[in-house]
Amino acid sequence: MRVIDLIQRKRDGEELSREEVDFFLKGAVGGQIPDYQIAALLMAIYFSGLNDQETVDWTEGMLGMAPPLDLSGLPGPKIGKHSTGGVGDKTSLIVGPLVAAAGVVAPMTVGRGLAHTGGTLDKIESIPGFNARLKAAEFATLLRNVGVAMNGPTEELTPADLKLYSLRNATGTVESIPLMAASILSVKLSEGTDGMVVDVKTGAGALLHKITDARRLAQTIVTVAKRLGKKAVCVLTDMEQPIGNAIGNALEVMEAVEAMRGNGPPDLVELSLEMGSRMVALAQPDRTVESAKEQLFQLLNDGSALQKFRQMVQFQGADPQVVDKYEMLPTASAAHTISSPRAGFITRISADDIGQAALVLGAGREKADSKLDPAVGIVLEHKVGDRIQAGEPLCSIYYNADEHLEEASATVEDAFRISATAPEAPTLIYEVIQ
Amino acid sequence: MRVIDLIQRKRDGEELSREEVDFFLKGAVGGQIPDYQIAALLMAIYFSGLNDQETVDWTEGMLGMAPPLDLSGLPGPKIGKHSTGGVGDKTSLIVGPLVAAAGVVAPMTVGRGLAHTGGTLDKIESIPGFNARLKAAEFATLLRNVGVAMNGPTEELTPADLKLYSLRNATGTVESIPLMAASILSVKLSEGTDGMVVDVKTGAGALLHKITDARRLAQTIVTVAKRLGKKAVCVLTDMEQPIGNAIGNALEVMEAVEAMRGNGPPDLVELSLEMGSRMVALAQPDRTVESAKEQLFQLLNDGSALQKFRQMVQFQGADPQVVDKYEMLPTASAAHTISSPRAGFITRISADDIGQAALVLGAGREKADSKLDPAVGIVLEHKVGDRIQAGEPLCSIYYNADEHLEEASATVEDAFRISATAPEAPTLIYEVIQ
Repeated sequence: MRVIDLIQRKRDGEELSREEVDFFLKGAVGGQIPDYQIAALLMAIYFSGLNDQETVDWTEGMLGMAPPLDLSGLPGPKIGKHSTGGVGDKTSLIVGPLVAAAGVVAPMTVGRGLAHTGGTLDKIESIPGFNARLKAAEFATLLRNVGVAMNGPTEELTPADLKLYSLRNATGTVESIPLMAASILSVKLSEGTDGMVVDVKTGAGALLHKITDARRLAQTIVTVAKRLGKKAVCVLTDMEQPIGNAIGNALEVMEAVEAMRGNGPPDLVELSLEMGSRMVALAQPDRTVESAKEQLFQLLNDGSALQKFRQMVQFQGADPQVVDKYEMLPTASAAHTISSPRAGFITRISADDIGQAALVLGAGREKADSKLDPAVGIVLEHKVGDRIQAGEPLCSIYYNADEHLEEASATVEDAFRISATAPEAPTLIYEVIQ
Repeated sequence: MRVIDLIQRKRDGEELSREEVDFFLKGAVGGQIPDYQIAALLMAIYFSGLNDQETVDWTEGMLGMAPPLDLSGLPGPKIGKHSTGGVGDKTSLIVGPLVAAAGVVAPMTVGRGLAHTGGTLDKIESIPGFNARLKAAEFATLLRNVGVAMNGPTEELTPADLKLYSLRNATGTVESIPLMAASILSVKLSEGTDGMVVDVKTGAGALLHKITDARRLAQTIVTVAKRLGKKAVCVLTDMEQPIGNAIGNALEVMEAVEAMRGNGPPDLVELSLEMGSRMVALAQPDRTVESAKEQLFQLLNDGSALQKFRQMVQFQGADPQVVDKYEMLPTASAAHTISSPRAGFITRISADDIGQAALVLGAGREKADSKLDPAVGIVLEHKVGDRIQAGEPLCSIYYNADEHLEEASATVEDAFRISATAPEAPTLIYEVIQ
């Protein structure tokens, strides 16, 4: 078998066999296939696609590179949660502890931010001392003790995704729908989960701008999961404006903690309850989503979720007092307010622009090896639909380095659209595919 | 400027600017851009294409990586010749010396065989001692003294093509029409030529199977050459059956020499005269192709072309007696005859299969670093249209290693189609685009 033949056949729209997929993945992870041939095949897949059977084979092939986390000793189903990435999306920080409080084991392999979208790994690591580089055995132990743990991707559990993801990120092939599906499924199943709930975001600030693409990804995930004997529920959600008000790593941790105190912004709370309740319903098939949602609403407001979060923080090596003393988190040295140039209704807050501005400030990485600043970011004072006066603050920019403030401010100003007439109420959750 | 943005923009069908193309090519040749990003962009170009302006920019960008051969001291126009590659195509071995005999300076940068197609560099190097690794200054000196010289691609003259070609070859992006055009043009123009004649082959044995693709390549080459102030003539020719009778490096040298003695097979002679006469007509615009063809016919049959070939061989370090003593060439140790299973007309000799069989015997390289055997190959006894008897020899296989004979024989047998009714006479030259 020769890699060049696989590349040419996929380029020409042909189907790859299970053996060919395995040959490729083993060679890619094992280092026998050079990165340029991997990149060429990834781009050919971007254009030619993978059908469902190929995506099943690709997912199983990736999974087969390392044994999954052994959670067989833990009672009850284990449910994973994933988001395809958004701006201000700190839902995972809330949902993990929340469902753990409801008795669902939630292993959370979390990733770095990508382009203008944030990553849960970067957010949770803004808590000083938080260790998200657990060995598989430690990960399992924490799940047994707390019910939730957050860990970065590892060579031990997801070697294929680590290899392919960094290449996809550098070669413009992140947006391939079958590769996204296989990546998500293989990472979630490497956690030893029985099912997963995936937040598939769509809109200007998402990787997939069009809802048709988001739907296609959701359908692929659900279909492939079924073929692998697992359950996946995909929730299509809006990523036109940021989720919640805070954008930036430590700022988002604070907002997540506030949400677990019952003070969360409505959209963040709604999304967290939606994702969480579907995880509970997957774990406990006799329950309805509605009853799970009611229970989670309670656990979010009575401090139970926050208690789980505290435990997780402690078990992962950080000081749990951080949830009461935000000054223990990194803080920006300066703030700048952006005010509305005129009165009217906010009809748009471009998540893409806000994410870009946060990136410029240092909340994300321009390059894979850039160092990010956990303190900086943006806090929105208003959301789409709000009525505002001229001169009223739209948002605050928290920054450490003057040099990027001007560019970030201009980008933030561009993000807002203010009109004389009220917009329609934005939709947060479009549909559920399962 | 970031490579990832260029990749994504090309992937999405957008146009790259001159600055972007230059940035990419400089980074690719200079080593700042990793091979996997080069590969991704090449595959994106395979799918999204390059428009004429981008192809002009790409060609000039490649050319700009090294100064072209300085032939300004030589009087008269210098004309290049290129073929997109075929099976049994030893035309360059004949055409170079032939037009030199007519006073046209013919710098010939020749390449290695690719997949099942042979390469003039491999063929000429089957002559023991032939040095095709000339420095640019030596190349120019030989052209001044002989009028023709054959040299492999060099870092000195074509660094961009060397870099991109080896990657294209390994990543399934050889068949990209704009990349083919830019490669051919940049290599030919690096020879210090004023114009070029390109044999664009089409059919089962060619890189471009469809005549519409071949025509598109020809039109691109002609258009881009014009935009660069140079003349290109493209001849679309048939590559359904091999050219001439010999396939294999030393075997092809012998057949080329025989053709320069006036004993060439008709299709090889016709193609050589066609290509050569168009080169002469480019160099001497007051002449018609027909008059040039008459002159070349004479020079081919009166020994003038062979005399130039002898000189070239001598100046390039080999013993010119080789043209009289074929035993000085590498010779296979054994031969095997393939006979016709039945009487009838030969309606097809698949160039693809014959090339593949020659590759299996060792006449070509399975991998870039495989060693080829210059002695082995196939000699056809008949061509398409011939009437044959059952048991009559179709061809002979010349081999050195028993282990590949069976596979090669089966492939050769598959290459022949014998039918009860005579086929239409095959077309050799389809059209000329200029």
